[in-house]
Amino acid sequence: MSLLLNQVINQITPVNKNAALDTQRCIDKHTKPSGGFGKLEEIAVRVSAITGKTENNLVKKCVVIFASDNGIYEEGVSSVPKYVTIAQTINIAKKKIAAINVLSRQAGSDVVVVDLGVDAKLPSEVVINRKIRFGTRNMLLEPAMTRGEVIEAIETGIRMAGELAEKGYQIIGTGEKGIGNTSTSAAVIMALTGLISDEAVGKGAGLSEEGFKHKKEILSEVLRRRQPNPNDPFDVLSKVGGFDIAGIAGMFLGCAFYKIPVVIDGLIAVAGALIASKLNPLTVEYMLASHLSAEPGYIPAIKELQLNPYLKMDMRLGEGTGCPLMFSLIDFALAIVREMENLEQGEIEGGVLVDT
Amino acid sequence: MSLLLNQVINQITPVNKNAALDTQRCIDKHTKPSGGFGKLEEIAVRVSAITGKTENNLVKKCVVIFASDNGIYEEGVSSVPKYVTIAQTINIAKKKIAAINVLSRQAGSDVVVVDLGVDAKLPSEVVINRKIRFGTRNMLLEPAMTRGEVIEAIETGIRMAGELAEKGYQIIGTGEKGIGNTSTSAAVIMALTGLISDEAVGKGAGLSEEGFKHKKEILSEVLRRRQPNPNDPFDVLSKVGGFDIAGIAGMFLGCAFYKIPVVIDGLIAVAGALIASKLNPLTVEYMLASHLSAEPGYIPAIKELQLNPYLKMDMRLGEGTGCPLMFSLIDFALAIVREMENLEQGEIEGGVLVDT
Repeated sequence: MSLLLNQVINQITPVNKNAALDTQRCIDKHTKPSGGFGKLEEIAVRVSAITGKTENNLVKKCVVIFASDNGIYEEGVSSVPKYVTIAQTINIAKKKIAAINVLSRQAGSDVVVVDLGVDAKLPSEVVINRKIRFGTRNMLLEPAMTRGEVIEAIETGIRMAGELAEKGYQIIGTGEKGIGNTSTSAAVIMALTGLISDEAVGKGAGLSEEGFKHKKEILSEVLRRRQPNPNDPFDVLSKVGGFDIAGIAGMFLGCAFYKIPVVIDGLIAVAGALIASKLNPLTVEYMLASHLSAEPGYIPAIKELQLNPYLKMDMRLGEGTGCPLMFSLIDFALAIVREMENLEQGEIEGGVLVDT
Repeated sequence: MSLLLNQVINQITPVNKNAALDTQRCIDKHTKPSGGFGKLEEIAVRVSAITGKTENNLVKKCVVIFASDNGIYEEGVSSVPKYVTIAQTINIAKKKIAAINVLSRQAGSDVVVVDLGVDAKLPSEVVINRKIRFGTRNMLLEPAMTRGEVIEAIETGIRMAGELAEKGYQIIGTGEKGIGNTSTSAAVIMALTGLISDEAVGKGAGLSEEGFKHKKEILSEVLRRRQPNPNDPFDVLSKVGGFDIAGIAGMFLGCAFYKIPVVIDGLIAVAGALIASKLNPLTVEYMLASHLSAEPGYIPAIKELQLNPYLKMDMRLGEGTGCPLMFSLIDFALAIVREMENLEQGEIEGGVLVDT
């Protein structure tokens, strides 16, 4: 394993449990039904544990989109033509008119696009060019990536976290763009959890019943042929993963290393989160789930991480679109801790207001 | 019935179904999985139906807090001392340090406080003084309000909607402050739906098991003694309601009349919504549910309205605190319709980007 990756994995430390307790105490002092803030309370305490501070204001936000193509596309596992990876990457990075752009603007978040493996040359003035290869290999026929490519993609994610930390970003969301990546993500989840394709595979962007059946058959066959080792996350990624999942896994490692709260979007992100958790379980303490993905593999994966999504919006957009919605809920939770003050009983005497 | 109330009830018109269809068509044109915006799509379509426009930007927001005391407090149905109504009303109106203030600021919403029946004289420079009485009567012993008082409270709600419409407010949230009002709200829901206290009564701000049992017994006895007529919403309110519920019912009527989207908070708001729906079922088309209240009476009430809450945050704060969170989700939904543009296929030729 390379030096950077090794260092990061070994130097991640637990979150600050004292800061979490302080925030809990601060919340408990408020005049309200005990636990009355519900999940806002849970979110605020979790963020405090990550940042080490009771009062937080995560102003500088960013959704990082890892874009890449997937060789398994050749097997007809997607209802969407492959050129959509390129076109939508450009829409997000240059024209800023995609759903993730709109929702991020609304949440006060920036969006950056990292090309890890799009199967076309993209203009480097709009995407961050970290291309490893023009798409992965077809994992039905051979491993999707070499072990070296996997490590390069993970390290790119770690470095992106470092660059964003240096620029003062305080919270990061995990996005992606890559036709075929619900297939690779389901395959990674199957490899790591032992689930079968009937349990982990979904319809992606909208397969027909026939297409859905075909996708499940292909992914069963991929797992049978590749035999990824569930105890070796690098082996799993190289045999049945994608550059985006590896990049996202690196982002989770990097955010844990730099102590930045990081939001899990949907299926692709949770596959990356699962990989990161296998490399170092402490990474999970730095993650917040956002919304419940419609893809069936999401639920067992998020359960394995012992996390719960906060939103159930039935969204099937991908790109990281759950993250800006979650950023907004986090903003509400943190505002409560920063700004709420207590009822002062002294102002009421015998039912009569004493103006202060 | 008075002239104003009669006019408003009779002049509410249905929402604009053509505008809803236009917005649905606009959304369907986007490059995305069909229905991929999930509940954001549903919200945007619903708002379009209310405003009659495809593109909406509900910038001017307001949560209206109706404050009042409840005579049933004397029977020991609340875990919180009565002076909290006064103290917290002042905190919200003057000091702006309560949860509803913090969350509303975060959502870009104003908060106004209307005193309908707080059992103390409040400074009129901080609250809008529309006091009808210093608290309702003890509904275990006699009807809580006269029919005239009920109509006055409902009309105050209607007039508030009118004043806010005139000031340019584009979306309104329904809040309340009044110790004892989970009891009156549960009683109203029981009266209108035929539910028994085991089905509709909750622990409010945090009753002990013993206190909870007592509250249920008292409310069963209230219903038995008062015998509110389920077909006469005015009778229900006057016998077992509160000024706040009546004011909120008026707010729903007024918002439907002035065609302003109005957000339901928790138990008290849904009781008011149920009353409004009985006075004119069209009012429901102007309502959006926010979060799932922890009070058991909420679920049958929101089901009767055929609405679904969008958030499940386990919050038990009252005051209207679900509304600002919902305002934020609505903002996301409307931004999608306003700002998202489509993938242009012409830009990609043979997998190579053609820069435009």
